[in-house]
Amino acid sequence: MSKKPSVPKGTRDFLPLQSLRRQYIFDTAKQVFLRYGYAPIETPAMENLDTLLGKYGEEGDKLIFKILNNGDYLSKASDEKIDARDSQGLAMEISDRALRYDLTVPFARFVVQNQNELSFPFKRYQIQPVWRADRPQKGRYREFYQCDVDVIGSDSLLNEAELLCIIDDVFAELGLSDIQIRLNNRKILHGIAVASGLAEHFSSMTVAIDKLDKIGLDGVKQEMLRYGLPEAGVKKALALINLKSDAQQTLKMLSGALTGVEEAYRGILEVREVLEHLPEAVREKVSIDLTLARGLNYYTGAIIEVGHPDFPSSICGGGRYDDLTGIFGLQGMSGVGVSFGADRIYDLMEDKGLFEEVVQSGSEVLFVNFGKDEVAAAWNLAADLRAEGVSCEVYPDAAKMKKQMKYANDRGVHYVVMIGEEELKRKEATVKDMRTGEQVQKTHKELVAYLSGQA
Amino acid sequence: MSKKPSVPKGTRDFLPLQSLRRQYIFDTAKQVFLRYGYAPIETPAMENLDTLLGKYGEEGDKLIFKILNNGDYLSKASDEKIDARDSQGLAMEISDRALRYDLTVPFARFVVQNQNELSFPFKRYQIQPVWRADRPQKGRYREFYQCDVDVIGSDSLLNEAELLCIIDDVFAELGLSDIQIRLNNRKILHGIAVASGLAEHFSSMTVAIDKLDKIGLDGVKQEMLRYGLPEAGVKKALALINLKSDAQQTLKMLSGALTGVEEAYRGILEVREVLEHLPEAVREKVSIDLTLARGLNYYTGAIIEVGHPDFPSSICGGGRYDDLTGIFGLQGMSGVGVSFGADRIYDLMEDKGLFEEVVQSGSEVLFVNFGKDEVAAAWNLAADLRAEGVSCEVYPDAAKMKKQMKYANDRGVHYVVMIGEEELKRKEATVKDMRTGEQVQKTHKELVAYLSGQA
Repeated sequence: MSKKPSVPKGTRDFLPLQSLRRQYIFDTAKQVFLRYGYAPIETPAMENLDTLLGKYGEEGDKLIFKILNNGDYLSKASDEKIDARDSQGLAMEISDRALRYDLTVPFARFVVQNQNELSFPFKRYQIQPVWRADRPQKGRYREFYQCDVDVIGSDSLLNEAELLCIIDDVFAELGLSDIQIRLNNRKILHGIAVASGLAEHFSSMTVAIDKLDKIGLDGVKQEMLRYGLPEAGVKKALALINLKSDAQQTLKMLSGALTGVEEAYRGILEVREVLEHLPEAVREKVSIDLTLARGLNYYTGAIIEVGHPDFPSSICGGGRYDDLTGIFGLQGMSGVGVSFGADRIYDLMEDKGLFEEVVQSGSEVLFVNFGKDEVAAAWNLAADLRAEGVSCEVYPDAAKMKKQMKYANDRGVHYVVMIGEEELKRKEATVKDMRTGEQVQKTHKELVAYLSGQA
Repeated sequence: MSKKPSVPKGTRDFLPLQSLRRQYIFDTAKQVFLRYGYAPIETPAMENLDTLLGKYGEEGDKLIFKILNNGDYLSKASDEKIDARDSQGLAMEISDRALRYDLTVPFARFVVQNQNELSFPFKRYQIQPVWRADRPQKGRYREFYQCDVDVIGSDSLLNEAELLCIIDDVFAELGLSDIQIRLNNRKILHGIAVASGLAEHFSSMTVAIDKLDKIGLDGVKQEMLRYGLPEAGVKKALALINLKSDAQQTLKMLSGALTGVEEAYRGILEVREVLEHLPEAVREKVSIDLTLARGLNYYTGAIIEVGHPDFPSSICGGGRYDDLTGIFGLQGMSGVGVSFGADRIYDLMEDKGLFEEVVQSGSEVLFVNFGKDEVAAAWNLAADLRAEGVSCEVYPDAAKMKKQMKYANDRGVHYVVMIGEEELKRKEATVKDMRTGEQVQKTHKELVAYLSGQA
């Protein structure tokens, strides 16, 4: 094989620094989730094909990666489909399994399958990759991680409030405390549709509103008219969803405008209660955004989206769903959850230089290798340093000094320790701070205390 | 859908407690790897099919999960293969990608592809799942994690010694300090083949020796004779590999028996040097085991296997390879690495009850929900507790006491805090220790200090 090997289109290798930074994001989120009593689960990368099919719409089905059955798979396929070269039809007969497309459907399957072993309300987080056969483009990958946190089996609005606190904590710990949380409620949206005479067009209405960011208010209006919605209703609905004021004021105006619309009334109460539960510091980051529709039809209550002034798209989002597990035969399980966009958070943090202080790419300390006798001393000192929790390494080969120093530099090592022949005799070491260039002389005895104090 | 959904055969869901325990193993290993200057990398779950094919032998190729191309894949396939119902041949035309089968081949591909961005010697660890279409059976899964740590681009034997120290540290931190490390060297094995006149049968010899655990020494002998190896040579080789003594003594006897066999001599020197580098505490866990062959043909020097007296099979293993990246066109990259068997380590730790003290399944503290006003106080106290690093949760619904206590029990919560109507008035709380049943009364002010001191 002479061609340089590569990864499949739309997938990525992560180099050490990238991996460490990704781990930092996930570990930070995990610590917060655990503090709120959410526990991790894992599901297999592959699900039975019929678990996934039909859950993401026709377009979604096409983007599911199917796994070819092993063995003589053609012997079990129908001649008819083969002879007709029916790729789509045959796929169902020669692949029993597929890669998961998101974490939501596997989570629903998990809850139904393991319901007797779970305590409800069940609070879980899940951080795993998903796969989609999307056309690869900037910022869109065929393999990417989702980071979901959900509570299922409780319709208390304390859960919504708790998730908003979790969101605030996670981003604050990542150095992104200036997030903006947008909140809506599907019941209010539906109430607006009812009050505007668009009840039967609710789905088209939300699909159009969902495009607001891209096409603007007038674009949404044109889109709704194109779908055949009555113009008077469209105008009324758009005037309502375009209300812009602070949270309390917006809710007050809505109450007035939607008097008598039972569902809207319940939605407004829900939003009020969620806001009441929030500590002031979180509440002031929340705005009511009635343009927040999130096309996903399974949302039934709260809709949440989180943005940041320095980033163009949302970095976290979710909502309340009342019947996620119904597709697998378990009714009446209300849940609410949010999903953190790890790739976007990564890009935002990188842009803002937030990783610099917190993620170190290589070891803290490198011992230069001057040969057999010198290295034995370095080896022992390195073990002592590790026992103090300092990451360090001994260069494995007695290579040229220049090569070893280049390695230290490339790896971002903070301190280089040199124990040459003379230093070995005197039981000393030269320590070079790679960031300042400063060198100090230490005895072997002083070295560990010195470096573990610095590190 | 009325049938209860399930995961594909050979794959598993991990419930919260299992996931936390698995995370504990991985996190413990990671901390050790980082302390020695090994950094993480990640590669995509799917590789191009031609990256994987031909690397695992004919049997291995059959166990690779191939991903069906999306779109009208049949239109690009040859009619000939379709009409002949040639499942194997057609698979190559309708799947461009496959799931990784191990972490070794993707690592080699990674090093070649990213060579200009890496600093050598390159020390990496990688903890990711792999997939094999094996027949599922007890302890063998179609999806399982590998946890590999390697250094590539250095032939120094310090690396072998370092990996043995890493192995010792990881297992010690997991509570398994009584591991047994078996060490061999491919060069010695080859030297034994040469000295026994079996040089041209080296591969058959190692394949037979590899089965020693299962079929015993006599079985290995029969197997070698069946392969057509000369009986005198077989007897001599088996007498040598069956040498049983302490490490130094074994090496001494070998030196005598293999005088003049250049390759054996180098192998013996290598083993001696590795042992010399080890701290006494690690060295005494190492024995020389000449029956350790590990069928994998890519090993060229050290062969390492780790066992535990309470477990039937090896829990970690690896060795030195001199030409892993050669398959992708990059020559002369010597490396050495080991792989930790996460599933087996999990089983062993579970058997020995080693998770009990270190992994907590639910939150530390649960606040009972007595209704709107009471919950507001609980909510604030919970926030204060979390700020002290104590994981806690407020039951989201004002459900019956019995239900809430059952939840606390099922989740393994340590403390339940009750703030009922009366307690709220007095700004007090009742704290129940769920392990002893003991109850104490605390003021709200005392509560946080009390629980964060206990937790």
